This record gives sequence, structure tokens and C-alpha cells, in this order.
Amino acid sequence: MEMRTPQLNHVKITDSFWKPRQELVRDVMIPYQYRVMNDEIEGGEPSHALENFRIAAGQAEGEFYGMVFQDSDVYKWLEAVAYVLAKEDHPDLEKTADEVIDLIAAAQQPDGYLNTYFTVARPEARWTNLREDHELYCAGHFIEAAVAYYEATGKRKVLDVACRFADYIGEVFGPEEGQKLGYPGHEEIELALVKLYRTTNEPKYLELSQYFVDQRGQQPHYFEQEAVARGDIHVKTHGGRWDSRYNQSHMPVREQKAAVGHSVRAVYLYAALADLAGDANDQELLQVCEELWEDVVNRKMYITGGIGSTSYGEAFTIPYDLPNDTSYTETCASIGLVFWASRMLNLRPDSSYADVMERALYNGVLSGMSLDGKSFFYVNPLEVWPDAAEHRFDKKHVKTTRQGWFKCACCPPNLARLLASLEQYILSYDDDSIYLHLYMDSTMNIPKADHSVSLQVATQYPWDGQIEITVDTDEPQEFELALRIPGWCQTPSAAVNGQPLALGAIMERGYAKAKRVWQAGDKVTLYFPMPVERTAAHPEVRINAGRVALQRGPIVYCLEEVDNGPVLTDIALPLEPEFETSFEPELLGGVTVIKADAYRSSSDYDDPRLYRPFTSSPQQVQITAVPYYAWNNRGRGEMLVWIRQNCC
Amino acid sequence: MEMRTPQLNHVKITDSFWKPRQELVRDVMIPYQYRVMNDEIEGGEPSHALENFRIAAGQAEGEFYGMVFQDSDVYKWLEAVAYVLAKEDHPDLEKTADEVIDLIAAAQQPDGYLNTYFTVARPEARWTNLREDHELYCAGHFIEAAVAYYEATGKRKVLDVACRFADYIGEVFGPEEGQKLGYPGHEEIELALVKLYRTTNEPKYLELSQYFVDQRGQQPHYFEQEAVARGDIHVKTHGGRWDSRYNQSHMPVREQKAAVGHSVRAVYLYAALADLAGDANDQELLQVCEELWEDVVNRKMYITGGIGSTSYGEAFTIPYDLPNDTSYTETCASIGLVFWASRMLNLRPDSSYADVMERALYNGVLSGMSLDGKSFFYVNPLEVWPDAAEHRFDKKHVKTTRQGWFKCACCPPNLARLLASLEQYILSYDDDSIYLHLYMDSTMNIPKADHSVSLQVATQYPWDGQIEITVDTDEPQEFELALRIPGWCQTPSAAVNGQPLALGAIMERGYAKAKRVWQAGDKVTLYFPMPVERTAAHPEVRINAGRVALQRGPIVYCLEEVDNGPVLTDIALPLEPEFETSFEPELLGGVTVIKADAYRSSSDYDDPRLYRPFTSSPQQVQITAVPYYAWNNRGRGEMLVWIRQNCC
Repeated sequence: MEMRTPQLNHVKITDSFWKPRQELVRDVMIPYQYRVMNDEIEGGEPSHALENFRIAAGQAEGEFYGMVFQDSDVYKWLEAVAYVLAKEDHPDLEKTADEVIDLIAAAQQPDGYLNTYFTVARPEARWTNLREDHELYCAGHFIEAAVAYYEATGKRKVLDVACRFADYIGEVFGPEEGQKLGYPGHEEIELALVKLYRTTNEPKYLELSQYFVDQRGQQPHYFEQEAVARGDIHVKTHGGRWDSRYNQSHMPVREQKAAVGHSVRAVYLYAALADLAGDANDQELLQVCEELWEDVVNRKMYITGGIGSTSYGEAFTIPYDLPNDTSYTETCASIGLVFWASRMLNLRPDSSYADVMERALYNGVLSGMSLDGKSFFYVNPLEVWPDAAEHRFDKKHVKTTRQGWFKCACCPPNLARLLASLEQYILSYDDDSIYLHLYMDSTMNIPKADHSVSLQVATQYPWDGQIEITVDTDEPQEFELALRIPGWCQTPSAAVNGQPLALGAIMERGYAKAKRVWQAGDKVTLYFPMPVERTAAHPEVRINAGRVALQRGPIVYCLEEVDNGPVLTDIALPLEPEFETSFEPELLGGVTVIKADAYRSSSDYDDPRLYRPFTSSPQQVQITAVPYYAWNNRGRGEMLVWIRQNCC
Repeated sequence: MEMRTPQLNHVKITDSFWKPRQELVRDVMIPYQYRVMNDEIEGGEPSHALENFRIAAGQAEGEFYGMVFQDSDVYKWLEAVAYVLAKEDHPDLEKTADEVIDLIAAAQQPDGYLNTYFTVARPEARWTNLREDHELYCAGHFIEAAVAYYEATGKRKVLDVACRFADYIGEVFGPEEGQKLGYPGHEEIELALVKLYRTTNEPKYLELSQYFVDQRGQQPHYFEQEAVARGDIHVKTHGGRWDSRYNQSHMPVREQKAAVGHSVRAVYLYAALADLAGDANDQELLQVCEELWEDVVNRKMYITGGIGSTSYGEAFTIPYDLPNDTSYTETCASIGLVFWASRMLNLRPDSSYADVMERALYNGVLSGMSLDGKSFFYVNPLEVWPDAAEHRFDKKHVKTTRQGWFKCACCPPNLARLLASLEQYILSYDDDSIYLHLYMDSTMNIPKADHSVSLQVATQYPWDGQIEITVDTDEPQEFELALRIPGWCQTPSAAVNGQPLALGAIMERGYAKAKRVWQAGDKVTLYFPMPVERTAAHPEVRINAGRVALQRGPIVYCLEEVDNGPVLTDIALPLEPEFETSFEPELLGGVTVIKADAYRSSSDYDDPRLYRPFTSSPQQVQITAVPYYAWNNRGRGEMLVWIRQNCC
């Protein structure tokens, strides 16, 4: 039995870390993106996204402009808006959203089809290039937005448009005579259809999602067949012949054991597999998910929760190939990893899923945006030497400062919709248990049969590991409170009403399970000490040999040139470093900074010789490490996560 | 006054290291290449190189096949043959070469033009794309071959063909009305014309070389103009818009201070600059050469003498950007560096030039060929993880085993012509002095006014630093014997007839200068101890931070998987390692092997966690290092030059 996630308005995040970021989404990113989509930003890349809808709807004259998936910007924006509206009234924003929905509805074709690129530019070419043309991807984002907006506002209009579109898609695709055996080139609609199913209770949507998943990778290969039908047998992107691993269609999904190809595509698919494993009680898919999960998190994930080791195809590569300075590690891929982790968690609570979710969220996701919410990294490397990144062709995807809204603007709105719906990721529950996955200062109301339970969490997480949870309930109730013990914590402790819990006896898959009759005013205190930890990588990760990453609590740290001078690789930690930490409220929006004595191995910068006899003349220096997510908010400069560690 | 290099037949290399390699060139590579060019190799890439000449000469029907510079294979082969014939009689080989020369002559057009691609395939397009089409490059290689063959055999036919061609080129190019203001897209003819000048004493050839050099990079930009004339303003190679740095035409040559662009092109140009600086006594060009030299050897050269840090454009990048696993470091580029170094040395003897020449020769050049002379590396990285090299797009230029003859077969014949003419690089001399640059077991005859001087060098170099030089002369003569003290040697010593020389007093720019009246039987003994040295890179070379390379004498060492197991990055040297060396005659053709105790920092290979708390539990292991040039002769496997070094 899959666990439930809370309605957004049942959780109130009051956290000093996350609340300001949610406010940035609401107050900065959503309004800015609307202006971008409406071409109101002076000097910016034209978006044309809303104008495309106006043209498709017959409300304006002109030509389609933008990426083939330009529509998805509007949908991701609408989804983020929905999450904001689910929690608070914003009449102006709702009015704008309703207008956008009217526009979307007007652009829908009589048969239910909805895609401004094909409607405006290539009406004859619908469904002829599923591999590259993102029609089903855009449909998926629309369905996600529609479900979110309906859930938030109760207004059916957008849901009806989505159902009509999904019904039409269900007619086009399927195994029957006259239907297409195709499936999306970029996965997304699979998980969206499960959401639509959950909201509408229409099994046909679940079945369509299953169809797409099970059709993927079957022979004869649909993408080859449609390419031949188009007279185009070569891939359009990236040069060379097309590799079906790129979109995970190299073999039937149920046979896949290794994560391959475009990492955003991959984790969107894997998230859908988890959904189907739960909603269709498909144990085989669950096992596929678990094997893919092991492959990703044990062999192909950066310590930041970044995934995608190469820019070529924005893809996974081989196990342990995790270069720090040429990684792709797209913000969207880490977001997709959060989606997947959350679904795995609800299928089968295990803190290792939550650990990865937390790792991605606080590090590789958050690094994608500047502290002011106005600029973004698409690519999140773990080591940057700006001169080389700006010169080398094999690093041309690495930007040395965050950029404004992109021409291919997938990451910023994806960040917006994730942050705006963070309430969904904090906890899950079933009839007997409440699982707390992420700790943030918040109040949660959990519907329990006839009664209500509310938990109030007070914490300074992620800077401090002290967490106080106060139970409120109208009358005493028995349930299990399952408290995630973070994988990063070596010495956790917990107490209920001051009585220490013997954690060893109540641990189950990483959760401390306190089952009792809870009364109003009961207090659970958790203490997760946060010393600075040095993390090593598996020795097969060749690039990290002899290096450690500093982590404190869930936060991965980095060195920046602004604090430590250039040539960060020259810095080495002693075998037994002493770390000092301090919370600096004025720095980078308020962060805990790590300082330590370390060595610079060489002072021979002035010796012009490129090669010289090795001498050991270490100079002691003090280094300063800051949270990785906050890097590059003080200008262009070097950055390094994996620091050299004197070995023995 | 520029120094002279010896005639090839005045030096006899008897060295146990180099002589077998010269024999490989003569007995394996030259015959094999002839069969390749004549399409006699079953299953190989078709070369068609000689057939192209037959078609151009009207002796066969057919179409041109191959690269636009396919002719240069024939010329480089002919040049290597010439060097063999200069030293020994080989009637069959000479007969074959004469036939090839007849064919080349027959393919020459009535106006002197010679290029089978344009003659056969695009006669209307002569000289319309100097930037990419390699006409002047091929001409340069032909001129080099012609000069070499004439010098070796005294036969004028090929030299006459070359002069007619050069004369024709001199009519086409120049500042006069009706002449073209162009210059080669791939430098090569500049240095060839200096050779032609030296052999013919015709100043016009020197002047044409000067013209090409001084025209390069002038505005308006010739390559832009000819591109516009062709209606083609985009670069044909590598995608994107064309960057004039690629072929060093971004500014006038005399203003260039940094090595940029395609590294083979660059060093061929720089070699020509050194030639012109000498032959035209052009002090400005000498200074340009010296600045470019400093830039290359102090900021852009690998410890192997490899150059070209990126596959994109096969080019130099920025100072200190020397990645070990994605470098291009083409064999031909190291060969070009040897050409340049040798010319610098003859301009102004300084052991730092010879040090680089030796470094390239014993390491980055020689790594380009297998021990059996049958397979070749185009790209010579300093670190290879085969699984990643075979998977990652940004490493697709890195091959994990040496390949047979290539479609673009520039490196093997370039190796052949260099090794076959190694005699030219060992020493140089003027009226007063004999400079010994490279030490190998050999006999050298140096013409000195009326008398002859011969030096016999006995040594086991590069495995042993003991060198004995015996002077022979018909009567006592005063001259200066300038003996290079290798830069890698910390504690050199020398004696004449058993009397120690006070090196400090007689050193000049890296050469110990022993001036005296030399008599037959005088013996100079040199002793250059060869302990294993750990070399560090300049700290700005970020990738080599905390790492050292092992070097013994001129030989750079590496670790190979076959000796040390996989995951070579996990190996770390202690602060004070003890090295043991032994010469192993049966291994890799006879090499000195280095063994040392080292650490593997972690034994936690079985722990599946990708990230885990750092612990220091080093395991002591014995490591084995072999010469870098000899790597990959025992199958596919990991290789590593820069080894982790415990820092403090």
C-alpha cells in the first residue's frame, strides 16, 4: 500500500532556510517568468511562449517562435502557480493564471490536440517525430499543470482541457488497428497520466501510462520506423548516428538494469515506473526501479545529487565516471531525482531514498539558482577553473556565472514548481504511520480517520541538528511516528517527553519508529549532531582519489576563490584537520561556514619552470568552505568540492 | 652564425636503444608503408596514394581517393627512404624510390604544378582554398623529400621537379600585380623552402619562405577573402565559425607571443621562423621564436614533450591547461617540437632546447609507435582509463590500443622520417666547436678545415649515465668540445683522460665546454647519475596538484594496469619513497624498471557505497613503473603518468 503525501495546504513551511526560497519563487520567479513568456523583458531572449498560444488560438497573427517544446514553459509556470495558490489566496495571480488557461483552452484543436508548434508551424507533421519533437513531453507538462491547478482551485476548466487532450492521445496511441505503437522521445507524460488518473479516478489514464512504458524499447523499434517513414534515418541532434540509449529505448523497460542516456529523460521515466509500481501494484516494475536506483546512487551520482556525467547527450556514462569539471549535472536532472526518490519513498519507506532526496535538494538542485532567484545554472559542475571552462570546447556547457532566463528555459520553472510544492516531500503517511522525511521548521496537519493530528516542527536545520516536534491532537491517538535518521548522522539521539528512545531497538530501514498513544503536547526531540565530516568516494571514482568532500549535516561544502585565492587544487587537508564552524547571518543569505587549517603544498608559483623536482615544503593556510549551493554568488571564480587529503 | 648539422653518413648510430628502432623504420615501416600506398595490404584502409599519382600522370584511369593531403604520405615516405639511402646502399629500395620519383615527375603539370587531388578531381579549383586544402603543405613535404633524396643520392631529377614546382609557386604568390597574397593554411612549405635554398643556394626560395611567413595574419585577412570568393564563409571543420588562431593567422607572425591553435601547424611554423632567423639573420624573428618557445615549454607542454591540450582543433589551449586524459598530444606535434628545438639549438646553443628535444624524443614521440613498429598512436595521453576513453564523447580521440596505419596517416611516416634522420639531431658544429646534444652509442666524423675529427661515443644511455667519448684525429687539433649537461641531472661529472673537469668553471648555457688541443685517443668521460627523480608540475597545473611523475634520466615513467592492477589513481607514493631499479632485458625490448613501496589509500572496493566517511587505512603495496614510451605493448589497460604523492 503506497503512502500518501499531504495536500499542500496541510503543511505550512515556516523554515528560515526554505520559506524565503519559496517566497522568491512566488514573488520573483513566477512574476518574472510570466513577463518572460509574455515578451515583456527588455533585452532578454524572446520567449514568444504565450504569443505562440495566441497565434494557435487565432487571437494573433504570426509565426511560431522558440524551441519545439516552448509550450512546456507555460505549463511549468502554471504548475508552479497552482502550488502557490493551493496554499494562499492570490487573486491577481489566479486571474492571470485563469487567463492563461483560457488561452490554452482556445489553442486546443477540435479533436483535443494541443501543441502550438505543430498547430501553427507544421500541422501536417503531428506525431511524425516522437523521438525528437516533444509533443508528448509538452502534453505531460500540461497534464501535470492541469491536475495541480484543479487540485489547488477546484476549477475544472483546465482539467477538462487536459482530459480531452489525454483522451485524444489515448485514441492515437495503442495496440489497436489504426493506432500508433509509439511512445515519447522525452518521457514525462507517463508520470503525468498517473497524476491524472489519481485525480480523475479514470483507469484509462493509468493504462495509457502503462502502455507508453511497456511499449518503450520494443522491436521493431518505433523510432527507427518513424524515422524511415520521414525519410530521415540520422539523428538530428549531437551528430553521428542515433543511439537509442539516449532516451532509454534501447531495450524493453522491464529488462533495464542500468541507468543510461539523457539523465532528465531517465529519471522522469523512473519516477513513472515507481508510480506504476504503486498504483498498479506492479512488483516487476518495483524491482526494475530498485535496480536502477542502486545503479544511479551507488555508481552514477555526484555527492551533490547531480546526475549526468557528460554533456554529450546530457547523459549518464559508465559506473564511477564522475568527472567534476566536465559533468553535465543539469539542475533539472537533480529535480527529477527528487521526484523519483520521493516516489520510491512512498512505495517502500527507506531512509536511503530520503537521504538522496535531501542530498539533491540542498545541493545539486539549489545550486541551480542564485540567492536572489534571478539567475540560474543549467549545468552544476563540482569543480570550475573559469579560464579553462571559458576556453575549452569540452567544457563549453560549463558556465562560469549563473545566466538569466535561457532560450531553453527548462531549469528555472522546474525549480519553481519543485520549491513551490516542497510541502509534498516532507512527510508521507498511511492509516497507521506518519513518516517524517525532511526536517524543516513547519506545521503539518495529517488527517487521521475521524481525528486530526498536527505536528509542529521547530528546527534550525540544516545548520543545526536539534529538532523539536510537538504533537497536537484533539484526543489521544495511537499511531506510529517514523522519524528519519539521516544517513549522514553518526550519533543520532531522540527522546519523547524527555525520555530517551533506544534507537537501536526501534529502527527500521533508517526510520526510528515511535509507536504510542500520542497526546496533545507530547514532544519529540531529535538531535543529529553536525560535525564536519570528510566524505571519500568509492575508490573506483578515479577522479576523486586522494580527495575528500566536506559535508556538514545535509550540506555539501566547497572552496571558492573569493575566500581562498586561486588554484584551489593546491590546497590539501592534513590527516587530522580541526574544523571550526560558525553561522554567519550576513554571508550568502546566512550560512554556516567551515574553517580549517590546511596546506598549500607549494609556494613555487614564481618559479617559471613547468616541471621541477618535487619538494615537500607545505605552507600552512586557513581555508574557508561555504555551502556548495551558495557558490558563485560573489562573482566569477574558481570553485572546488573535492579537496586534496593527505593520505597517510 | 648558425651551426651546421652533420651529413647523415658522417654519423653512425650503433646504439642499442636507437639502432633497432632505425632498423624497424628501414625493415618494417618503410616497406609496409610502400605496400599501404600501393594498396597491397589486405583488409586495410585503402590508401590509393600512388594510384592517385598514376591517374594524375595519365598512366591509369580512375578517380582521386583519400584525404586532400594524400600526396604527402608519398613524400614523407620518400623522405624517409632518402635518409636510409644517405647512410647505406639499398639498390632495391632506391629503384623503388626512383620509380616513385618518375611517377611524381609524370604527374607534374606543364606549368610546374603538382598535386594529384586538384589535378585529378578539381583542376578548376587550384589555390582557391589555401586555408583547408593543403596544396602548399603537400608542396612543402615534396620539397623536403626532394632535397633529402638529392642530398642522399646526388640524383637531380626529383630536385628539378621540386624547383620547377617551387618556381611556379613563386610566380603564383607574391605582392606583385596578378599574384596572390596568400599563404598556407597548414604551415610546412616555409621550412621546406629554406631547405631548398640551402641545397640550391637560390635566394628566391628563401625569399618565398619569408614572404609566406610575413604575409600570414596580415589584414585584410586572406583566408576571409578567399572564403568570400568561394561563397563559403563558414569553417568546414569542427563546426562553428572559423577561428583564425587555428592556423596562427590571427595576427602578423612577428607580433605573436603566445602559442595558439593547431599544434602541429604551430611548431612547423615556429621551426621555419627559426630557420629564417638564422639564414636571413633576422633578429626580430629570433626574438619571436624565443618568446613562443618560453610560452610552449613553460606553460603548454606535457612532461612527455607532448603538445596540444585539446582535441578540438588539435590545439594549444591556455597556460597550464594540461589535462592528462583528454589531451591531444599528437605524435606529429612532438615530432614538430623536435624539429623546432633542433633549429633553436643551432641558432643559439642552449641545453634547454636540447633538454626539450630529448624529452620529446624519448617520450612523446616514441610513444607514438609500438615496439614492433606496426601500430601507432596518433594521440598520446598521459592517463588512460580505457572504459571511459571508449565511452565518453570528449575522449573519443583517445584510443586504448595502438592502431594500424591510419586513413589520415600522418604520424607513422613522420615518425619514420624523424627516426631515419636521427643522426642530424645528435650534434652540431661550427669552425671552432663541436656540440654534443644527445648521447647515444655512435661514431661521428666532423669535417674540420683540412683535417678530420672523429668522436666515438660509448654508452648505455638512456639506461645508464656513463658516457665515454674517444677522440680520433689525424693530427692534434684545437677545438672546443661542448658537452650538454642534461637538465635532469643534478650531479654531473666529467673528466678528460681521467682528469676531472671543474664543470662550474666551463659551463655555458648548459654545455660544459672543454677547449684544448685534442689528440687521437683522448678520452672524455661523462657521468650523469640517474636516480629516480620525482617531478612536480608548476602549481598552476591544477590537474597535477598533489601528484608527481617519475623520471629517470631522460625517460618519463608510467604505471600500467598489467603491472599494478586497475584503479591506478588509488596508488600514492609515501613522502620518502625508496626506489629500486633494474634493467630487464626481456621486458618491452629491454627497459629499466622502477619499483617502489607505495600505498593504496583504500581497500574498500567491496563497500558498495559511492560516498562514505573518509578513513585513512593505507595498505602498503609494491608498484612497478615502466617507461611511458613503452606503454600499451602488453594489451589494453589503464595507464597513469602522474602518481599521487603524499604531500606532508
